[in-house]
Amino acid sequence: MDKKILGVDWGTSNRRAYLVDQHGACLAEHEDGLGMLAVGGRERFSGALAGLLETMNVGREVPVIMSGMVGSASGWQEVPYLDSSVPLTELPAHLAPVADADWAGRCHIVPGYCHRDGGGVDVMRGEETQLLGAVALGHRDGWLVLPGTHSKWVLLRDGLIQSMSTYMTGELFAMLSAGGTLSSMMGGDASDVEGYAIGLAQARRNEPLSNTLFRVRAGVVSRSAPAAQAPAVVSGLLIGAEFAAAARALEASGGTANITVIGSPALAVRYAVAADHFGLRCDVLDPHRVYCTAISQFFPQA
Amino acid sequence: MDKKILGVDWGTSNRRAYLVDQHGACLAEHEDGLGMLAVGGRERFSGALAGLLETMNVGREVPVIMSGMVGSASGWQEVPYLDSSVPLTELPAHLAPVADADWAGRCHIVPGYCHRDGGGVDVMRGEETQLLGAVALGHRDGWLVLPGTHSKWVLLRDGLIQSMSTYMTGELFAMLSAGGTLSSMMGGDASDVEGYAIGLAQARRNEPLSNTLFRVRAGVVSRSAPAAQAPAVVSGLLIGAEFAAAARALEASGGTANITVIGSPALAVRYAVAADHFGLRCDVLDPHRVYCTAISQFFPQA
Repeated sequence: MDKKILGVDWGTSNRRAYLVDQHGACLAEHEDGLGMLAVGGRERFSGALAGLLETMNVGREVPVIMSGMVGSASGWQEVPYLDSSVPLTELPAHLAPVADADWAGRCHIVPGYCHRDGGGVDVMRGEETQLLGAVALGHRDGWLVLPGTHSKWVLLRDGLIQSMSTYMTGELFAMLSAGGTLSSMMGGDASDVEGYAIGLAQARRNEPLSNTLFRVRAGVVSRSAPAAQAPAVVSGLLIGAEFAAAARALEASGGTANITVIGSPALAVRYAVAADHFGLRCDVLDPHRVYCTAISQFFPQA
Repeated sequence: MDKKILGVDWGTSNRRAYLVDQHGACLAEHEDGLGMLAVGGRERFSGALAGLLETMNVGREVPVIMSGMVGSASGWQEVPYLDSSVPLTELPAHLAPVADADWAGRCHIVPGYCHRDGGGVDVMRGEETQLLGAVALGHRDGWLVLPGTHSKWVLLRDGLIQSMSTYMTGELFAMLSAGGTLSSMMGGDASDVEGYAIGLAQARRNEPLSNTLFRVRAGVVSRSAPAAQAPAVVSGLLIGAEFAAAARALEASGGTANITVIGSPALAVRYAVAADHFGLRCDVLDPHRVYCTAISQFFPQA
């Protein structure tokens, strides 16, 4: 019988589980809304994991590797961040065993990473597992980009983290849509091509978002721009701010001008368009495949 | 009997009224929450103004000058923006008479301004009246800064608007406090001196706010920074972004390095600290005095 391992990407609002073999092939997967917040307290994670195994019909002999907010101070068990000087390929040697007696020896948490630079500290929990998968798939250099609520940009050199920056892109877009000055014009189609390009071009100017976002409204009330384009312009400003910062960093370091996006097709398309706008070469990796590959890297340890 | 004029600063959420003589002295003032939103519809502004006159015991023979959102598309009567090439001192020649038959001939609205540059369009409604007052008080050159929900930075040269930028500083601070990733650490004292200085220093690096704001949280969860400082750091990041942009513009233009803040003492202190951090000389003007001075400039026309 082949060995199997269960990987659980346990985030704030959702969890995704993948049963994988040692080659990284996905044998079964499951996704539900039982994220950290919905679990509702440290002492309820054990039951939540037991329920997941039952739902997926996975035996208790299968080792479990968990990543994401499950290892945060508000999760099951806080696992300290690794310093970014630790290579991604050494993650399997830094797994934290779950202390809970019911799971001892067969359930581990992947530590997140912490990176310090002149601009302070940045952190990740969960994305390090995706990065390990990307490295295993041969993406060891250049920008690895994980778009979403909190977009992560990680510059790798030979599998080592050189820099790490998180952008509250998805969260700010949702906030600006939910209320305030811009919300009345945020109901339209955020994928409008022309509006998105306008936002990206504006982002290149490196003016503060607090100003460029206001100017989306100023354009509409002064009848200089159609209100229907506003969501796409805002999307272009927020995503463009990520690219503008990376472009500045590239200029300073003279690094390679390619990015690898690990994201859903819908998000990957927007990032590919932005990459083209900023003159960067863009590869796309499927996040499920990357995650399963990463989980298979833990076989010797799990 | 001396001539009098009533100036009404009619904003989104509040209105402030000042009865002034022709020298700009304030004879009476009133403030209430009957802003544009609370009035509740175009046809109810006439009654809302009549109520204000009654409350202040001001006769109907007194001319009324109104500024702010009262002249917007959602206000009493939409007044088109003036182009920024029109000098502030010519505002009295561009007053819009209120069309409402009850007020014809004795009630006017001050138009806002619209400014176009390489970064698009910016607009103001209400602040132009403050600017006119500042110019009348001799502040004809340098940055005029009106901090608040939407902070305005206006560069004047000999009383002419050279540039205009609005920053959603107060609105973003309120949004980030009300919900989302940072909100749990935003309850503390935003005037912490050390935290504010950290935020200002970070802002000088010109990284996107979507990143620097996330790093406030990253500092706390990685135990690199105290959570209690977070609100002051966020305040420093947002206000610092305004100064960083102005400093870049100064560098490009070689203009004068002084700012004049028109704001409440509490806000003026924060801006003075930031100005010092960025090496700018800072004057402070009282907004009530500035407004009354501005209103007195309308005497010949009203």
